[in-house]
Amino acid sequence: MKIENIEFFYLSMPEVNNSVDGSQDALLVRVTSGDHVGYGECEASPLTSISAYVCPLSHGACRPVKDTVLGEIIEKPEDIHRLRNKLHLNSMDLLQAPHTFSGIEMALWDLMGKKYNEPVWSLLGYKEVFPKLAYFSVLFGDNPDITYMRARDAKKLGFKAVKFGWGPIGKLNSKTDAEHFIAAREGFGEENYVMVDVGQIFIDDVEKASERVDILEKINATWLEEPFHAYEYDSFKNLKSKCKRLRIASGEGCHNTYMAKNLMKYGQIDFVQIDCGRIGGIGPAKEIVDFAIKNNVTYVNHTFTSHLALSASMQPFSGVEDFFISEYPGNPMKLATEITVNSIDKDKNGYIKIPDGPGLGVDINLPSLKKYLRNVEISIDSNTIFQSSEL
Amino acid sequence: MKIENIEFFYLSMPEVNNSVDGSQDALLVRVTSGDHVGYGECEASPLTSISAYVCPLSHGACRPVKDTVLGEIIEKPEDIHRLRNKLHLNSMDLLQAPHTFSGIEMALWDLMGKKYNEPVWSLLGYKEVFPKLAYFSVLFGDNPDITYMRARDAKKLGFKAVKFGWGPIGKLNSKTDAEHFIAAREGFGEENYVMVDVGQIFIDDVEKASERVDILEKINATWLEEPFHAYEYDSFKNLKSKCKRLRIASGEGCHNTYMAKNLMKYGQIDFVQIDCGRIGGIGPAKEIVDFAIKNNVTYVNHTFTSHLALSASMQPFSGVEDFFISEYPGNPMKLATEITVNSIDKDKNGYIKIPDGPGLGVDINLPSLKKYLRNVEISIDSNTIFQSSEL
Repeated sequence: MKIENIEFFYLSMPEVNNSVDGSQDALLVRVTSGDHVGYGECEASPLTSISAYVCPLSHGACRPVKDTVLGEIIEKPEDIHRLRNKLHLNSMDLLQAPHTFSGIEMALWDLMGKKYNEPVWSLLGYKEVFPKLAYFSVLFGDNPDITYMRARDAKKLGFKAVKFGWGPIGKLNSKTDAEHFIAAREGFGEENYVMVDVGQIFIDDVEKASERVDILEKINATWLEEPFHAYEYDSFKNLKSKCKRLRIASGEGCHNTYMAKNLMKYGQIDFVQIDCGRIGGIGPAKEIVDFAIKNNVTYVNHTFTSHLALSASMQPFSGVEDFFISEYPGNPMKLATEITVNSIDKDKNGYIKIPDGPGLGVDINLPSLKKYLRNVEISIDSNTIFQSSEL
Repeated sequence: MKIENIEFFYLSMPEVNNSVDGSQDALLVRVTSGDHVGYGECEASPLTSISAYVCPLSHGACRPVKDTVLGEIIEKPEDIHRLRNKLHLNSMDLLQAPHTFSGIEMALWDLMGKKYNEPVWSLLGYKEVFPKLAYFSVLFGDNPDITYMRARDAKKLGFKAVKFGWGPIGKLNSKTDAEHFIAAREGFGEENYVMVDVGQIFIDDVEKASERVDILEKINATWLEEPFHAYEYDSFKNLKSKCKRLRIASGEGCHNTYMAKNLMKYGQIDFVQIDCGRIGGIGPAKEIVDFAIKNNVTYVNHTFTSHLALSASMQPFSGVEDFFISEYPGNPMKLATEITVNSIDKDKNGYIKIPDGPGLGVDINLPSLKKYLRNVEISIDSNTIFQSSEL
């Protein structure tokens, strides 16, 4: 199969605000080879990722992403891995490149799966897949009462696992934070999983972070996520040494496999959270799964957008029974839910199953997306180098 | 001073080719505050970096770079540091952001220096500056004879230090590589500094890299640069343990201070090479200088473009006598030499001195740049969000 055409569709809600809800926009990628079509999704700034695809050549180690993929022949999974290595050498100095490539790479797997009539997880070598416990991500409220109500609502929605994140945590004092943690546990119930995400708020301050450990142990939180900057390995390691039961999670920002491996190796985290839309796609994520198995780390996806992204993010660890939990975009913006025709729904026990269909197993709902399409045009010296195509 | 306007000028040679010569294009940044103007330069893909500045908001942790800087008040160096921290939180998920910010940050120092009539190195706290031995970067030839001639030419140009890079090294076998190393030393003379840069060619293969150590020791190479991927800390450390006299250098790709510190800490490199146009500007680079001093690592700039970039890259380590050597764009494209009116010239001993003038101490040659200006226009839904300004 020759990669004949790659199109990017910048989709967004009519209004985008400063909340950390990542489902307010999306960059959908379509790859075409003859009669076959595959779809993927890039996480992060759509315009910037489009630019990294079409930008003029700067020099031999700063080439546009398109130079690595357009016109290439892919027949087997190894060909997709080969393109990833080619990209590293071609676009070493183009920082945005892995984000752009991530969506293309997903689409290549989707395309290949559709051609061979196999789900991507089967192409990845799995014979069997396992249901995952879906966890719902919610923001902490402005006060503990709101946090309590959000926890109760999450429970009512049938989730058995919830992650609270961001909000006021780390900005005031550990006493206020403790009130939020307790409210989250009380609202969600004793028998369920509660996780806490603080969005790098402590940067590298182990002492400040460790003031929250006792109460997190008391409410039986499963993990504390991103206490520090993702490169602060020693801080992660030092905080971990102060935890008894509480475990540490990080990794969503990794834009290559090395970053994720170093977090496990030097930071000694317990859960590694990978976003397939950032790390370079499904192949690099599978490499992290294999590394995590060998190092007794639990792999979890990071997904906050559509069920296309969710399917892609589940593929790499779908066949590993021990990796039991999956982030689930429980309440995304309408745009994100409308990207696919079919959806990955949780069962009455709060579990989700990866699709069985060929490729990523989800169908794109093109007609419904027209209203979200942003028309991007980029020209240099009056030559148009990018113009949004029709959906 | 209020940051009132930030303009980007995408400059390029009429033809850009696949060689690794990074001086084929440039992204010049101009920051204006009242009557004051400062200039900086971003390393890497100009269109992508412009897009990271103007892109629409994706969500609260993926904001365009302009949201961090436009309208801000800067009065003292701490204000520039503050903006860097603000950027990290605002644009955590916008991968290209540090490259875009780097040029802006340089321009802010230039602006501040001009306002207070002080060179940037003085604002950084240095009382005194020291000349640096300029090293000239050349590519290895296709065969050892060409490498020999290039070494002889570098010597004729008056350089006392030369770095050979890329070309066929690592692609054939260690015997051929050895012939190139010997040719470089013989052409350049015994009494001078010779360095070797292999552009990450061995990725993580310590054995392959170590096959070159003996001959590099024999020709008395000062350092072996970038044998591995910049995150392959253990490979760096293991290779170092096999070296007697030869030292290891890396760091040009670092796009934050954490990456550079981890390379020193875990990779145990001997020379840390920082590009101010990538790491986030002069402030982050100065932080690496201070860290390098404490850890017995030698700091070197990475500079392959204009004398504006060269001045910026010399500022952070100009006041440290032990950090004795500086990369010097010895034979850049005409575009790079025409960016500034004045230049940083080496003396008869091969040394260069940082400018004494206010700010970065170089004047931009606006009229000569008109012919290189690429007219970029970006529109979304027919609204122009970027249009190149007049120089």
